[in-house]
Amino acid sequence: ILESYEAAQGWIVVTIIGAAIGLNAALLNIITEWLSDIKLGYCKTGFYLNENFCCWGEDNGCADWHRWTGFEPVNYVIYIIFAVGVDGMPLCSEIMLTGGQICFSFTAATLVKSYAPYAAGSGISEIKCIIAGFVMKGFLGFWTLLIKSIALPLAIGSGLSVGKEGPSVHYAVCTGNVISRMFTKYRRNASKTREILSACAAAGVAVAFGSPIGGVLFSLEEMSSYFPLKTMWRSYFCALVATAVLAAMNPFRTGQLVMFQVKYDRTWHFFEVVFYIIIGIFGGLYGAFVMKWNLRVQAFRKKYLSNYAILEATLLAAATAIVCYPNAFLRIEMTESMEILFLECEGAEDYHGLCEPDHRLRNVVSLLVATVVRVFFVIISYGCKVPAGIFVPSMAIGASFGRTVGIIVQALHEANPGSVFFSTCQPDVPCITPGTYAFLGAAAALSGIMHITVSVVVIMFELTGALTYILPTMIVVGVTKAVSELFGKGGIADRMIWFSGFPYLDNKEDHNFGVPVSHAMIADVVSIPSTGLTLKAVERLLSKDSYQGFPIVDDENNKILLGYIGRTELCYAAERARKERTLSPLAKCTFAPRTNIEPIPTIYAPATPSSSSAPYGEQHEPDYSTSTQTTIDFSPYIDLTPLSVHPRLPLETVMELFRKIGPRVVLIEHRGRLMGLVTVKDCLKYQFKAEAAEHGEREREMLG
Amino acid sequence: ILESYEAAQGWIVVTIIGAAIGLNAALLNIITEWLSDIKLGYCKTGFYLNENFCCWGEDNGCADWHRWTGFEPVNYVIYIIFAVGVDGMPLCSEIMLTGGQICFSFTAATLVKSYAPYAAGSGISEIKCIIAGFVMKGFLGFWTLLIKSIALPLAIGSGLSVGKEGPSVHYAVCTGNVISRMFTKYRRNASKTREILSACAAAGVAVAFGSPIGGVLFSLEEMSSYFPLKTMWRSYFCALVATAVLAAMNPFRTGQLVMFQVKYDRTWHFFEVVFYIIIGIFGGLYGAFVMKWNLRVQAFRKKYLSNYAILEATLLAAATAIVCYPNAFLRIEMTESMEILFLECEGAEDYHGLCEPDHRLRNVVSLLVATVVRVFFVIISYGCKVPAGIFVPSMAIGASFGRTVGIIVQALHEANPGSVFFSTCQPDVPCITPGTYAFLGAAAALSGIMHITVSVVVIMFELTGALTYILPTMIVVGVTKAVSELFGKGGIADRMIWFSGFPYLDNKEDHNFGVPVSHAMIADVVSIPSTGLTLKAVERLLSKDSYQGFPIVDDENNKILLGYIGRTELCYAAERARKERTLSPLAKCTFAPRTNIEPIPTIYAPATPSSSSAPYGEQHEPDYSTSTQTTIDFSPYIDLTPLSVHPRLPLETVMELFRKIGPRVVLIEHRGRLMGLVTVKDCLKYQFKAEAAEHGEREREMLG
Repeated sequence: ILESYEAAQGWIVVTIIGAAIGLNAALLNIITEWLSDIKLGYCKTGFYLNENFCCWGEDNGCADWHRWTGFEPVNYVIYIIFAVGVDGMPLCSEIMLTGGQICFSFTAATLVKSYAPYAAGSGISEIKCIIAGFVMKGFLGFWTLLIKSIALPLAIGSGLSVGKEGPSVHYAVCTGNVISRMFTKYRRNASKTREILSACAAAGVAVAFGSPIGGVLFSLEEMSSYFPLKTMWRSYFCALVATAVLAAMNPFRTGQLVMFQVKYDRTWHFFEVVFYIIIGIFGGLYGAFVMKWNLRVQAFRKKYLSNYAILEATLLAAATAIVCYPNAFLRIEMTESMEILFLECEGAEDYHGLCEPDHRLRNVVSLLVATVVRVFFVIISYGCKVPAGIFVPSMAIGASFGRTVGIIVQALHEANPGSVFFSTCQPDVPCITPGTYAFLGAAAALSGIMHITVSVVVIMFELTGALTYILPTMIVVGVTKAVSELFGKGGIADRMIWFSGFPYLDNKEDHNFGVPVSHAMIADVVSIPSTGLTLKAVERLLSKDSYQGFPIVDDENNKILLGYIGRTELCYAAERARKERTLSPLAKCTFAPRTNIEPIPTIYAPATPSSSSAPYGEQHEPDYSTSTQTTIDFSPYIDLTPLSVHPRLPLETVMELFRKIGPRVVLIEHRGRLMGLVTVKDCLKYQFKAEAAEHGEREREMLG
Repeated sequence: ILESYEAAQGWIVVTIIGAAIGLNAALLNIITEWLSDIKLGYCKTGFYLNENFCCWGEDNGCADWHRWTGFEPVNYVIYIIFAVGVDGMPLCSEIMLTGGQICFSFTAATLVKSYAPYAAGSGISEIKCIIAGFVMKGFLGFWTLLIKSIALPLAIGSGLSVGKEGPSVHYAVCTGNVISRMFTKYRRNASKTREILSACAAAGVAVAFGSPIGGVLFSLEEMSSYFPLKTMWRSYFCALVATAVLAAMNPFRTGQLVMFQVKYDRTWHFFEVVFYIIIGIFGGLYGAFVMKWNLRVQAFRKKYLSNYAILEATLLAAATAIVCYPNAFLRIEMTESMEILFLECEGAEDYHGLCEPDHRLRNVVSLLVATVVRVFFVIISYGCKVPAGIFVPSMAIGASFGRTVGIIVQALHEANPGSVFFSTCQPDVPCITPGTYAFLGAAAALSGIMHITVSVVVIMFELTGALTYILPTMIVVGVTKAVSELFGKGGIADRMIWFSGFPYLDNKEDHNFGVPVSHAMIADVVSIPSTGLTLKAVERLLSKDSYQGFPIVDDENNKILLGYIGRTELCYAAERARKERTLSPLAKCTFAPRTNIEPIPTIYAPATPSSSSAPYGEQHEPDYSTSTQTTIDFSPYIDLTPLSVHPRLPLETVMELFRKIGPRVVLIEHRGRLMGLVTVKDCLKYQFKAEAAEHGEREREMLG
């Protein structure tokens, strides 16, 4: 029974995590909707109801839903106050947690700085690094989860141009981490935990978009440097459970998993591909532009604004509210505006005269303004100290641009219905569907900012169910991808990793340095001779150097490589040896491997400090109880088979080894002798140096 | 310009290949439809038209479409004759190609055996091995492509229980191989070619199902052992081009990419999950059952029927036609029957009274018979010597079983409309949609036979556009996956690889041997000393041993590892040296590396055979023009940095290296000295031995 429990444990853990993520997502959805509507009015029958629930079953508002006043300018002011207030709350929430102090105070700023940094931002870059093996203490802890969960709906509700998808990935991964910690299996095994975290990232996207397969693919394409099929299957399961729980909770009360569903009755025409390409190009340019300027804003923020996080977020919210309210497409929530923009004109209700041919010019201008303003706010908002994603804002921008294109094409067609270009249109029925352009625009912008392809197609597809438009979506995303590759590799998450200087080997980039690994390695390695070192010397080594581990050599002169010992293991062994016996600091340490493949004459090293240190000396009495013993045997802690390579192996191959096999260190060995060692950091250092020499001043200038 | 052409070449090649695959697919679709209909009747206005085109715009047949006779039994006979005839044709087509000899003769059998073997079967297993690096000459050649393309529609049209999807992958990969050979870049670089082949496999599935994203995921999940993002993006592009061309050709004349589109108006209820689980379990059992028995049939076929391939296929076609005609669901083409089974009852035309409550019992029996008979024919047909896939037959089986379950559930509900179990059903409207059960059954069976998950969900989804049913599909596929894992790992493609004995390291399996690599390595390696070997000795080595390469050691006694030389390189170098100069067979060969990291005293080896062979002797005159020279310098051909590992490294890690880095050989080095070497084959040999010891007699008996 124990054995089968052991085997099933992985699935149990994933199920629990999936359910927790689904529950959390459902609650957050409900809270977000309420917060978003409360800015515009309130429900008479119950203040906790949002507009949809208040007016259940009725279209276009109802009597129970009461706008704050009848007078527009006052509504405007109330909208702004709520936005700012709601935005302040996530920052205050930490303070409330720690004892209810006064808002916006110096203490708050201190708390945010010492507490919230991990809850802020999107978190995708950091999670990418963590899944790749980088350790960030506290980033996935319970407090981060709690604060992120509280702050996220508030940040969305504040109307900032930020989305919930990135943070949704973050809280999902936090949930996964917190729950998996409860099981010893995962507390011990970092690689198994990373597998779970990949699955959680998938579930995070799945619940954010109601798109389980899209989530799995996102985790595959964006989050994980190495994604074996087993992880895929786990992600699949986790996303399935999370989405099923979310569906059972039914937070939108539509019975649907997706935020909004669009049905396009008409299909597309081949001549429209021209406009699809325009939209695709826009997506690529949008991504490149936002990434470039957002990084500059980030650099500015890091330099000047790090002490004014609260003030900054509050002012941003105020500015967003002031600027956005007058525009019909910016005023409403982003998902709502997307839903409106995606719609076909026929049959559906008409928001803001979007479908009336007479209002076309007004709509085009309004949409263009919305696009530009939203781009501006995304650039300055993404990265501020509230939980903030960039998925939905990008999609909203793409949608408004796409709809603009769509309306223009429609106008063109109606002006020249007889031209050859439009000849495949059937007469007397509508030919162009501007809503589909908005849909494609959203896909393009999302792909442009994140540099993902297949996941975008699947997410858009699961989001809207527009099956006939899968080919156009693929074309648009393909063009976007091609355009964005012209502006350098890596989406915004990769750029942020680069900007923050995390040690992360990007598997998207093809490096071709053309140099052997010896160029990047550390040559003067501190190595431990297999015998002869005193305990004191070992401890001095540990206290003096901050290396993560030490190669074991036969002796310092011939440097014949025998093995490798990690710093942690060495510390642990030394401490344990110290605890169990009284040891003189002069006790000899042996690091020799216990057995050898070749029959080597075993020389017994007598337990006196003056004994000769035989080259292959072995310690046959690892009995720790005799207190008079003056040698310590570290051999059980030694990795006898560290990965070692020839110094002339190309650096690319070594980086491939790091990415795919994931050792902590690779030793450089030539004819049995230790030549040096490399870690991921050394590779990255070399890479940065090479890149800096290549790009010259350009990049540095960009970050101003 | 040349440089940018070089960079764009990859995309140009992929575009051409994609277009070629799309074109081919469209043509095959048209031919297949016509061949399938000609069995039932012919078109008066033009014999080359199939029923759909003949009766364009009219439902349920028309006057122009003429059944062969008015008398059913005669139709039955004609049906069988055509089936057998059509089935004979693919086998004859080879003969026609080679000069119009008499069908069904001994010559034909010889030709098929020497020619067609590669065009027969599904090909997925072989392509998996080829993408993993295994070389199979001619498997992807032009002749295979031609014969496969001609034979495929004939095989489908013959009514055998085989599908076109597997062969579609095969001809797509052939196309890719043939076209990429035309570019020198790909003729030279095997790894780049494999990338293209992965992309082609994606395009093959994409055109077969009209499911571009599903194709990419299939290539990712099933075909490729290693799938970097760059390949994904290339597959995406190739699938996109192929599908776009197919859509432009519009072979179904429906304007749709998908074979059939289903719209489900009703959503599902949570209580239905119980039945979904039943369907999922069926999928798993179906897969396990078919795999087990199909392998036995294959073993039987290999043993007794290999000389009677034509007769076998003909008899099979005849048997299929005789048995299947009386059953309404077996008579029609498999895709057609699936389309009918997937339909909601409301609104659509009613085939064979499938929707009438009065005919329920008859339909259940008829569907169950169809399921059982089809399973039987799939088992005996898959693997026979015509191009044959197993995707569509599996889906058809799943669909008929699913529909059975659906009808039973519907009957249950109508019998007890008031029970608690069905309480979420709304009264007076239909609650259960049997079509959705058929849909889920198809997904389950496909997943069960191929052991793929995410791709099945996406393919089903793209095939039908049933967005609301994504969660049920995921549940069913999840259950199927869990059940099939109980019956051993790997889908039918993996089993066939195992059965055929191809060297393929499966990345799905987790091996845990717990032994060091030294257990699997070859210890008595034939190595080449760096100096002192005569040309004659080298040639003797080449002619005597069939090793793929030789490690270079300092000298035979100390066995200090210096490098590795591949057999091909050695042959090439020896031949070239022979051609350019007149060499005595006693000319000395040096294999020493040219430069070293360490400053080693360089000893110039004078050009006399009697010169002392210095341990690090170097040859500074690679000038081949002096004909009196009697030493040959092989150093430019040596791999100086072969991957070498410690003998105690766990075997699992070495297998991981093979899978992920893909070296031809891994050398075992201990303290600079060569201990042995391992290849993929050695690992597999050890694995088979270990598995055989584990499973004992079970497996062998199974293959009887």
